[in-house]
Amino acid sequence: MPLLNLLPVVQILGFLLILLSFLMTLPVNLLMFSNAPDWRAFVTSAGVCLVVGLLGFFSTGRKRHKLQQRQMFILTVSAWIVIPLFSSLPLLLSDMRLSVTDAFFESISGVTTTGSTILTGLDTMPGDILLWRSIMQWVGGIGIIGMAVAILPFLRIGGMRLFATESSEWTEKAVPRTNLLARGLVLSYLAITGACILVYWLLGMDFFNAINHAFTTVSTGGYSTSDLSMGQFHSLAMLFASSVFMMLGGVPFFLFVRLLNGQAKPLLRDSQVRFFIGFLLVVATVIGLYQVMENGTAPADALVSALFNVTSVVTTTGYASEDYTLWGPLAVVLFFFLTFVGGCSGSTSGGMKMFRFQLSMLLLKEQVIRLLHPNAVIARRYNGRIISDEIVASSVAFSFIFLATLAVVSAVLSLMGLDLVTSLTGAATALANVGPGLGDAIGPAGNFQTLPDGAKWVLMVAMLLGRLELLSVFVMFSPYFWRN
Amino acid sequence: MPLLNLLPVVQILGFLLILLSFLMTLPVNLLMFSNAPDWRAFVTSAGVCLVVGLLGFFSTGRKRHKLQQRQMFILTVSAWIVIPLFSSLPLLLSDMRLSVTDAFFESISGVTTTGSTILTGLDTMPGDILLWRSIMQWVGGIGIIGMAVAILPFLRIGGMRLFATESSEWTEKAVPRTNLLARGLVLSYLAITGACILVYWLLGMDFFNAINHAFTTVSTGGYSTSDLSMGQFHSLAMLFASSVFMMLGGVPFFLFVRLLNGQAKPLLRDSQVRFFIGFLLVVATVIGLYQVMENGTAPADALVSALFNVTSVVTTTGYASEDYTLWGPLAVVLFFFLTFVGGCSGSTSGGMKMFRFQLSMLLLKEQVIRLLHPNAVIARRYNGRIISDEIVASSVAFSFIFLATLAVVSAVLSLMGLDLVTSLTGAATALANVGPGLGDAIGPAGNFQTLPDGAKWVLMVAMLLGRLELLSVFVMFSPYFWRN
Repeated sequence: MPLLNLLPVVQILGFLLILLSFLMTLPVNLLMFSNAPDWRAFVTSAGVCLVVGLLGFFSTGRKRHKLQQRQMFILTVSAWIVIPLFSSLPLLLSDMRLSVTDAFFESISGVTTTGSTILTGLDTMPGDILLWRSIMQWVGGIGIIGMAVAILPFLRIGGMRLFATESSEWTEKAVPRTNLLARGLVLSYLAITGACILVYWLLGMDFFNAINHAFTTVSTGGYSTSDLSMGQFHSLAMLFASSVFMMLGGVPFFLFVRLLNGQAKPLLRDSQVRFFIGFLLVVATVIGLYQVMENGTAPADALVSALFNVTSVVTTTGYASEDYTLWGPLAVVLFFFLTFVGGCSGSTSGGMKMFRFQLSMLLLKEQVIRLLHPNAVIARRYNGRIISDEIVASSVAFSFIFLATLAVVSAVLSLMGLDLVTSLTGAATALANVGPGLGDAIGPAGNFQTLPDGAKWVLMVAMLLGRLELLSVFVMFSPYFWRN
Repeated sequence: MPLLNLLPVVQILGFLLILLSFLMTLPVNLLMFSNAPDWRAFVTSAGVCLVVGLLGFFSTGRKRHKLQQRQMFILTVSAWIVIPLFSSLPLLLSDMRLSVTDAFFESISGVTTTGSTILTGLDTMPGDILLWRSIMQWVGGIGIIGMAVAILPFLRIGGMRLFATESSEWTEKAVPRTNLLARGLVLSYLAITGACILVYWLLGMDFFNAINHAFTTVSTGGYSTSDLSMGQFHSLAMLFASSVFMMLGGVPFFLFVRLLNGQAKPLLRDSQVRFFIGFLLVVATVIGLYQVMENGTAPADALVSALFNVTSVVTTTGYASEDYTLWGPLAVVLFFFLTFVGGCSGSTSGGMKMFRFQLSMLLLKEQVIRLLHPNAVIARRYNGRIISDEIVASSVAFSFIFLATLAVVSAVLSLMGLDLVTSLTGAATALANVGPGLGDAIGPAGNFQTLPDGAKWVLMVAMLLGRLELLSVFVMFSPYFWRN
């Protein structure tokens, strides 16, 4: 083997592009060419994808390669660049005449399930474009689940080894198990998406909106078919249903696989899931009551609206039902901090993730006990498992690099003239793959269109870094990576 | 012994109050009753302190008590409440007619060496009040050094055990060593303060200003004799000299004790000190060059001014030479993050402290190596010492509780109507004991006077929490603390 054999990486990328080319025909097919004025753009893009994909797949030989660890890093990172790159083609070739920057921003924001948009006038946009945005997020969602369950634990990124199962060992013996798990994940994803389409439709969305919003809800993506986002439906029931499905999108998906196998306990007793749901309910209640007292909003309105917007930010979906920055200073400050939190690991959501906060709290409790009983022997347990120092260290390393990257990205954004709040929350919302930031420009009522091109590119890099849990990228800049 | 014997705590507090009563006569004595219109307030306050102190000291018996660990926690926390409480008396009894809230805010901000002020019109204020503010900070400075060197490592707070020396063991055998160390610390503190007075005087301050500013420079406190802070002297040389002395205040003081004993190497080779100085120079250069390019400032002006203000915030002094928030968005964002950083542990400065960032970087580097070589055996070394998992865990627990407290304090401040930037940077500047925040109200050109009383009390609590490294306080809320 030469220093680093990239053939298997190219082969898999080729395979992914072939899949992508089929997905690109979906918007046109689903709409049966009605409301699809850009069908030429989609067909051309699909063709390009197919040709490049076939070239990549077959030029690299018929042999199925087994990936080494460093190749897996390169594959992971390059897949999250190549897929959005090709996904931007239909946007670029459409009649919207987007700049390269804007088209790429929209597709990276889509595939990473961030949901920040540079488009306005969504309400009058052709159906094919809207549907493609939703499909990008839906594909990104299943992509991140697969990565979190199958690749990251193996790569020991950020304490994710905590969630390593037998199927993440990648030994020959585990392959059948891995296949079973993969099938279960796809099945759960499809089932929840189907249920979401149905519920949205029953609650009054038309079929087109139901599909689009189900795709971007379950993937915790947040693209919508209207500039008003979920506010367009003026329905508390819809907001509540959407909150529930965003929560499902923020739960570790392997727990659904267990559920499919008839085991409900692992889901119901999972301490990350319990903490996640409890956290959402407490914060939503606080903000809801605050809104009742501060603005005299009707309690039902205030509580559901708080639950929806809090869940949207914490699960890193990024829908909005209204401009929550008008709810008062407490709401603004809480939404600022919520931007960092994120859902559960192994889900479609981004951010720092619940389990890392729980590990930190474990450390804190341990520290308090140790202060008073220096010789106490304390077994660190989380979710019934004993936690090794290695897992704690890598989880901490992740939190540190997340905040350090936040500082650097904010500084670079400010260098492009963005003010403090826009720089800070822009960096946070991109790194955590949330969607909206705070402030006039990029707040829940704003739009990323007005930012300078340079800032958009910085945000794209931040979205990718966040989606790749940072370390998968940074490790490639380490001299150790390229040594033999 | 009953459940918890508080007599020794009361005895030591009494002793501290007796010392404080002597300090209270200083402003009047030093000024020889000229420019001391409030001398009655000082004499009365000193009398009250003396009476209460004597009562506390002698009512608790003649026996010298040896402190148990829990008594030491209670002593530490109560000392940092009792001393500011009594220190506020002269302000309260003076002709300024401050409210109780404002007087207590000023004395807590003083003794904790935070340096946020509610006073305006400092330039025309009587000398005795100005001098008393400086003395409070100077006393707070030596207090925190003593606490960091002698008490915190013993209490295993926040990874400070890393700096445990033989003299922090508190065994009978170590007492002579501890006394020697204490003498060395006081001597270094006096020597550096003396040098600072001299340099300031040589550079053109009158003697009164030189004493005041030396007191608040070496203690990294930040109170000044003018609303313009250090900007009043219009001297680059002064700013540069002040930067150097603030840096000295931000260095672990036991290294100066070694220096007094003829050992320069520990100071010059200390990895925390090197990182600290390097960090200041890099950030100051970036901001200085930015100001040259952005605003066309003369390079010497820009660089010295950047060095001064960056050093001021990082060492948590809180002087300002001008309103650096006008330097442009990059400066604002960088100063936002600098508010958290802090100097070295074992110094007079607050914040998260350099060594905790260094430990996080060690973890990160280790993580990157481990990603590529899962079975690598890595010895964690810092400053030539092997770092135990316990130290890492407690350092991480500190960082976590710091950021969690930041979120809670910001939220409470916003509940009182403060906007995002004021809540966020107000909480940060109080917890890190820096001084100024960002935004119109509490920025470097602003003043804390305009905040609602409730917000001032919240900030006082935050200043105390920060000064006590949070965990010393929180541990007392744990049920473990009160169990036998």
